[in-house]
Amino acid sequence: MITPKKRYLLTPGPTPVPEEVLLSQAKPMIHHRTSEFRQILKQVMEDLKYVFQTQNQVLIFASSGTGAMEAAVVNLTADGVKFLPIVGGKFGERWKEICSSIGVDFIPLEVEWGKAVNPEDVEKILKSDKNIKVVLATLCETSTGVVNDIQKLAEITKKYDAILVVDAISGLLADEFKMDEWGVDVTVSGSQKGLMLPPGLAFISLSQRAWEIVEKVNVRAYYFDLKKARKSGAEYDTPYTPAVNLVIALSKALEMIKDEGIENIWKRHSQLATICRNAITSLGLKLFAQKPSNAVTSVALPSEIDGTKMIKFIREEFGVSIAGGQGKLKGKIFRIAHLGYMNIFDLLVGIASIEFALHHLGYKFELGKGLLKVEEEFLKQYK
Amino acid sequence: MITPKKRYLLTPGPTPVPEEVLLSQAKPMIHHRTSEFRQILKQVMEDLKYVFQTQNQVLIFASSGTGAMEAAVVNLTADGVKFLPIVGGKFGERWKEICSSIGVDFIPLEVEWGKAVNPEDVEKILKSDKNIKVVLATLCETSTGVVNDIQKLAEITKKYDAILVVDAISGLLADEFKMDEWGVDVTVSGSQKGLMLPPGLAFISLSQRAWEIVEKVNVRAYYFDLKKARKSGAEYDTPYTPAVNLVIALSKALEMIKDEGIENIWKRHSQLATICRNAITSLGLKLFAQKPSNAVTSVALPSEIDGTKMIKFIREEFGVSIAGGQGKLKGKIFRIAHLGYMNIFDLLVGIASIEFALHHLGYKFELGKGLLKVEEEFLKQYK
Repeated sequence: MITPKKRYLLTPGPTPVPEEVLLSQAKPMIHHRTSEFRQILKQVMEDLKYVFQTQNQVLIFASSGTGAMEAAVVNLTADGVKFLPIVGGKFGERWKEICSSIGVDFIPLEVEWGKAVNPEDVEKILKSDKNIKVVLATLCETSTGVVNDIQKLAEITKKYDAILVVDAISGLLADEFKMDEWGVDVTVSGSQKGLMLPPGLAFISLSQRAWEIVEKVNVRAYYFDLKKARKSGAEYDTPYTPAVNLVIALSKALEMIKDEGIENIWKRHSQLATICRNAITSLGLKLFAQKPSNAVTSVALPSEIDGTKMIKFIREEFGVSIAGGQGKLKGKIFRIAHLGYMNIFDLLVGIASIEFALHHLGYKFELGKGLLKVEEEFLKQYK
Repeated sequence: MITPKKRYLLTPGPTPVPEEVLLSQAKPMIHHRTSEFRQILKQVMEDLKYVFQTQNQVLIFASSGTGAMEAAVVNLTADGVKFLPIVGGKFGERWKEICSSIGVDFIPLEVEWGKAVNPEDVEKILKSDKNIKVVLATLCETSTGVVNDIQKLAEITKKYDAILVVDAISGLLADEFKMDEWGVDVTVSGSQKGLMLPPGLAFISLSQRAWEIVEKVNVRAYYFDLKKARKSGAEYDTPYTPAVNLVIALSKALEMIKDEGIENIWKRHSQLATICRNAITSLGLKLFAQKPSNAVTSVALPSEIDGTKMIKFIREEFGVSIAGGQGKLKGKIFRIAHLGYMNIFDLLVGIASIEFALHHLGYKFELGKGLLKVEEEFLKQYK
């Protein structure tokens, strides 16, 4: 009955790609230095502004989201500038690693994994060290399932005349995010999350304030040189070969996003996240994130259950992919995503497979309670 | 949360088509009068014998299953031969309509809808009317969800030297069926059911005994002339243009079927059917079929619920297609299929959407009970 084993992707990236998007990618290859492609690029660059909630240009790179993170740091490396990476999980650590690797001056703000950064802590540091000119933050810290208060961080950075760079790779479209209204200076994201695309595209958008700094930097990067990308982008072009079919797929995904409307998308993610959390706690399990993101629910496991085994069982037996813990959380938590192209039935499959695994691993709980909770919460929110 | 509305096809045909099969269909067009295509046709004609459980040739037509039903009747229309269509639902009626339309001599055996034919009733008629030489039966009567005892009918027809023609369109691969071992003379089927293909192909296989009659008939048909098809088929060819891409898709589907194994496929359908029936009755609903098929579960609705409204609600709100009643059962029953490319999670989606609809329509039941039953029954059968 488990055969045919179909694939259910409930991980916080890659996320399921709609059939229409997959098919749009499968169209015959076209050349990128053509008016046909430029027209597509123009449209997607315009539509991305809506997704980022900005009037700034959104640049597209053929790279993973990490590429855009590096681009942000390397292009903001002006003389005497010190960086403040906020480190509350694996992706906060990535900011720190990028700073190390590029060799910029930085002091990390370590945050207990599972907690959001306290904006007051950021304020204290900015107040005490005037050389800190760039704060590196994360919207949804995918490894812990925590969402950070970006709006508040933006207020503080503005007050101290620092630049706020936000990794919105997994959070974009799931957690509310308003780049211009909130005053975020740099936003980076990737394709394989809320944008419902395969991996391979990274995005970056900079405020006027950020561009002013970037313009003065003698950037020590070639591929990720934002000034070059900006110049080409102004003509709806790219300095190097773009990932043509992914851009075509992006145009289809953006069409779907505009049709649904960003407020509706945020609301759907919030509703699915609420239902998921309630289903999880109804099974007697504890949420790991103190301030949970709408992209992913991270769940603390009782010590008698090995998370790595649990994830493996679910994937191998049912074809359902959920994520385990990363770094120091390996084996101790699992993470179920409700990110991108997902609806109530995807959640039902996820919760059922978790119930089956808990049953298999001898955990004591009331069978069916998680599914009942999904139904109850759904009906509460439905109409 | 209902958005994105994905499609869930839980109807007894068309059934979900595996991605691998869909992609195989999307390969560039090839010509049919080539050794490349003949090689494919040879392989699928061999593999179809396994699915039909026969050593006889299985012929392929570009048509719906109904085409193969007509082919059976028109090619068996020898002088003085009288037909006995067994009519226990819409597809039994189709046998009768084909007989009428072709103008053959026939007497129908009417069976109460929802019940299987009593083989003794067939025996009585064959005993009393020696001119009846062809019995037209149905493996799974899709309109009522009933499975008929084909093995018993084959024993009886053999005893009275009559030919047994079986419409195995929706039953094939879901309900156990052994053409040669049981002594079935003619089997017809279609592509869009257990074979996991889009509609467009019909299949027919005849025993030696049936061919002896067909060979003598001066057939009043051109496209469905079985003698011509047999002759071409012997050289792995078709008299007229075959549905090339569907045949290529068929070869992929047959690969998957051989990999799973027909006994496992029968077992899976039987397990899913059992789980589905238990989930349905746990909601206080009644099964309509007295002897239910493993392809589809038909459910009698309480008079206060309009089945047509219910089906419409489920389809429009959730993107889930289940089937309503046909003919005189319209509005009175609904039918949920577990046929072809389906697993436990498909059933979960089906039962959840039925629970949501029942709740919406004000039916009194314990929410979540159907889903719990699915989980309980699954765990009983699992390992």
